[in-house]
Amino acid sequence: MAARNVLFIMCDQLRWDHLGCAGHPHLRTPNLDRLAARGVRFDHAYVQSGICGPSRMSFYTGRYVASHGATHNRVPLSVGEVTLGWHLRESGRTLALAGKTHMLPDSHGMKRLLLDGQDELAVLLREGWFTLLDRHDGHHAETQSAYAHWLRAQGYDSADPWTDYVIAATDTDGSIRNGWKMRHARLPARVREEHSETAYTTDQALRFIEAQGDTPWVLHLSYVKPHWPYIAPAPYHAMYGPEHALPVRRHAVERGSNAHPVLREFQEEEVAQSFQNDACIEAVRPTYMGLITQVDDHLGRVWDLLERMGRWEDTLVVFTSDHGDYLGDHWLGEKELFHDCVQRVPMIMYDPSPDADATRGTVEPRFVEAIDLVPTFLDALGLPEAPHVLEGRSLLGLTRGTATAWREAAISELDITFRAARRRLGLPTGQHRGFMLRTAEWKYIHWTSGLAPQLYDLRADPDEFFDLGTDPAHEATRVAMRERLLDWATNLKCRTTLTWAEAEFRTDRHKAAGVFYGEW
Amino acid sequence: MAARNVLFIMCDQLRWDHLGCAGHPHLRTPNLDRLAARGVRFDHAYVQSGICGPSRMSFYTGRYVASHGATHNRVPLSVGEVTLGWHLRESGRTLALAGKTHMLPDSHGMKRLLLDGQDELAVLLREGWFTLLDRHDGHHAETQSAYAHWLRAQGYDSADPWTDYVIAATDTDGSIRNGWKMRHARLPARVREEHSETAYTTDQALRFIEAQGDTPWVLHLSYVKPHWPYIAPAPYHAMYGPEHALPVRRHAVERGSNAHPVLREFQEEEVAQSFQNDACIEAVRPTYMGLITQVDDHLGRVWDLLERMGRWEDTLVVFTSDHGDYLGDHWLGEKELFHDCVQRVPMIMYDPSPDADATRGTVEPRFVEAIDLVPTFLDALGLPEAPHVLEGRSLLGLTRGTATAWREAAISELDITFRAARRRLGLPTGQHRGFMLRTAEWKYIHWTSGLAPQLYDLRADPDEFFDLGTDPAHEATRVAMRERLLDWATNLKCRTTLTWAEAEFRTDRHKAAGVFYGEW
Repeated sequence: MAARNVLFIMCDQLRWDHLGCAGHPHLRTPNLDRLAARGVRFDHAYVQSGICGPSRMSFYTGRYVASHGATHNRVPLSVGEVTLGWHLRESGRTLALAGKTHMLPDSHGMKRLLLDGQDELAVLLREGWFTLLDRHDGHHAETQSAYAHWLRAQGYDSADPWTDYVIAATDTDGSIRNGWKMRHARLPARVREEHSETAYTTDQALRFIEAQGDTPWVLHLSYVKPHWPYIAPAPYHAMYGPEHALPVRRHAVERGSNAHPVLREFQEEEVAQSFQNDACIEAVRPTYMGLITQVDDHLGRVWDLLERMGRWEDTLVVFTSDHGDYLGDHWLGEKELFHDCVQRVPMIMYDPSPDADATRGTVEPRFVEAIDLVPTFLDALGLPEAPHVLEGRSLLGLTRGTATAWREAAISELDITFRAARRRLGLPTGQHRGFMLRTAEWKYIHWTSGLAPQLYDLRADPDEFFDLGTDPAHEATRVAMRERLLDWATNLKCRTTLTWAEAEFRTDRHKAAGVFYGEW
Repeated sequence: MAARNVLFIMCDQLRWDHLGCAGHPHLRTPNLDRLAARGVRFDHAYVQSGICGPSRMSFYTGRYVASHGATHNRVPLSVGEVTLGWHLRESGRTLALAGKTHMLPDSHGMKRLLLDGQDELAVLLREGWFTLLDRHDGHHAETQSAYAHWLRAQGYDSADPWTDYVIAATDTDGSIRNGWKMRHARLPARVREEHSETAYTTDQALRFIEAQGDTPWVLHLSYVKPHWPYIAPAPYHAMYGPEHALPVRRHAVERGSNAHPVLREFQEEEVAQSFQNDACIEAVRPTYMGLITQVDDHLGRVWDLLERMGRWEDTLVVFTSDHGDYLGDHWLGEKELFHDCVQRVPMIMYDPSPDADATRGTVEPRFVEAIDLVPTFLDALGLPEAPHVLEGRSLLGLTRGTATAWREAAISELDITFRAARRRLGLPTGQHRGFMLRTAEWKYIHWTSGLAPQLYDLRADPDEFFDLGTDPAHEATRVAMRERLLDWATNLKCRTTLTWAEAEFRTDRHKAAGVFYGEW
């Protein structure tokens, strides 16, 4: 049977290599491993920017960052851009949300268009065309959110139960510790596991799916974890130890005098300084792993409900993440730059069609991108695919083995304007952008603002330690990479106001339209 | 005194070399020559696309075509884009229009945002934030336009007086000839000169300027001429003969088997075929010249009114065109491709400031672009300059001699999707784009869709006959040009939803905003 429903699951800040099925030797993710066994695991899935806001806007618009323009966190998505929710709505469908989107409304644009009211349209625009079950973006203390109210109803007596319980920890002597401080990462959260963000968001999703019965639905189940604050409820806080963590990938050369100036300045940011302390890495990594197993456990509840309702027959299920996490690799914390531990994400897709039976349980090595999901969902549901605006490609061609030519590189972008690092680099306010082109053999990074490029030979240097960006021996490779970036940039889809059918209809029509060229 | 008013005059399809002050040996343009003597003539002014719609959207938005997305005629400007009229409106000013804009509303976007009504906002959006005195786009038979009604009131008894009188001609035997047929170009229009489009549009402007008194204003006076149909009213139809025309610039090599496929296919379009007939060139060029002198004569009326009202003291005046016209050069008619006779346009600017006195009567050789006008107008009026969205630069730095570094190339773009030539090239519906980079020495043209590049050595070959786009001897030049195009493409302003002041304020503010990174 073709898909009638879509379950689009996202984690926040989950590295590609932190899954059992991706080869992590100690991390337990049995439910995600089951999903991979039922579907296809895309082993080279890349986001379009290594930070929440722009990455998610690419997931939701199906467009590169250069096209949608929301280049960093807290940069609003233009009112002129459309998202999955709009594409579904055009076909009479609805996109439900449980959890995080990081969507920020275009207040200037909405004001200009007199759309800054409180009507349904204004609400949809503010939410990027998601219909909320409950939006919970995490890491913002919200005292009046539905989650805060619910926690108080469960007995957490606080004006701000998120700060006081969810991300606060109980020390061994019973004292309360601040979860923003990573030195407390090994302590258990004060919130009970069944009241944690992961449990709460899962509950929303389960209630929604159950309530739909046999009515078709599209749901974005969007967890805020394992994103910091790195505080896990018991028993997940103590499930893993430093001995279970992946080895830290960093090299003295990355801190040397020849390090790229952007890398160097990001290493000077406070969070990177923290992760240059081994004690920080040893505290955070086990808890990060625990938070992942917690998500996996709750996904088991989702799988069970799908089973009970027969929804595996008609539901396309995708699991992915908006970006990874340095966790101390490359002398960095957090995310943003172009190393694989940030840009490469888990992506597992279960396609219910019998046409996908041949690929079940396989690992797909070709490059897929975040922007591929919107076209995939529209394709799976049999809805118009909007190639005049969408820049990704339906992945059904891979799950069903029908794709012939496929892309041979992934692209990601970054705007460093909003970082103190930008000021330290002496760059004025403006746009200061990086562009990654990642092939099987090379990673090339083009920077604007007069900054030197970066180049990594991934065959010889899979850990991306040795920057060949100014090595004279590799000029030909850099030129070739820039040529590919130019091809990419000149093929971005800027003409979004006409469908391709309209464009075809209008081709060679100037006479039919009553506009003539002079004739002899 | 600083400028309080802006008079932004545009012709349609006027080549850069068809002005007396630009060196045309026979064409009389005394009023434009006077403007050049009072101001600065920009000798290398380039449009951002060699066809009306996208070129004008660049003039009106201050943005490259890749940024505004209206890549061809009849491609709507996205509701997410803003124009000069909006920038003025944000500061409480209004942008008046007399004549043509080629603006096409974004009906999909307006419908999505429930803005497809009849209120003031919907009207402004449909007109690209112009407030109409009277819009007259020409070359569309409109039976209910204000111009049509006015013509009937003047005694032109017809349901469609534009078709029957304005572009119809009277033959020597008194019979009526169809003005779309270029073989009739030397015949006089049936309309009287004072009722022609040029006269009518000038009348609108004069009435508006006079009515403003001392109230500040911004007016776009936008002539539809000398654009085809090439029919001029007496006496302009007979003012020039073929002996007064510039020599035709074309070369057998442009028709050879090595001609670029896009050039070859455009030469197969009907209008090009017509202009490959010398009789067509000899009929059209004199009339084209007559239409220009007619515009010039009417600009004399405008100059006189400005003089009488003292408006030369406080009015910035710009004269330009949206693109040129092949007129048989390069075996082509019409426009679109990247030769200088299409891409290079007249641009004369009178800056009333005493700071510009030193440059009066001078010719400025540096590259200026259509996108420079919006920033120029805002600068001249002392309004916020919106560098987060505008991609051009204020020309006051040139008229006042304060600019230091300046651009060293002009960029133009073309989308060939809508042409029969695209189909003959075997290209499917989609985006098929060309990008011109024009320096003092070279013109490089990058095509998508697997088409070879073009390259012209402008020092050795100023007429752009000899395409070096596949010559192995010039590979290094082509690579260098592509690198410059990549620099251009990666610096386009996609982040339009935040001002630069907001971006600066948000830099390094994650803690102040209540969002923390983990600290050790």
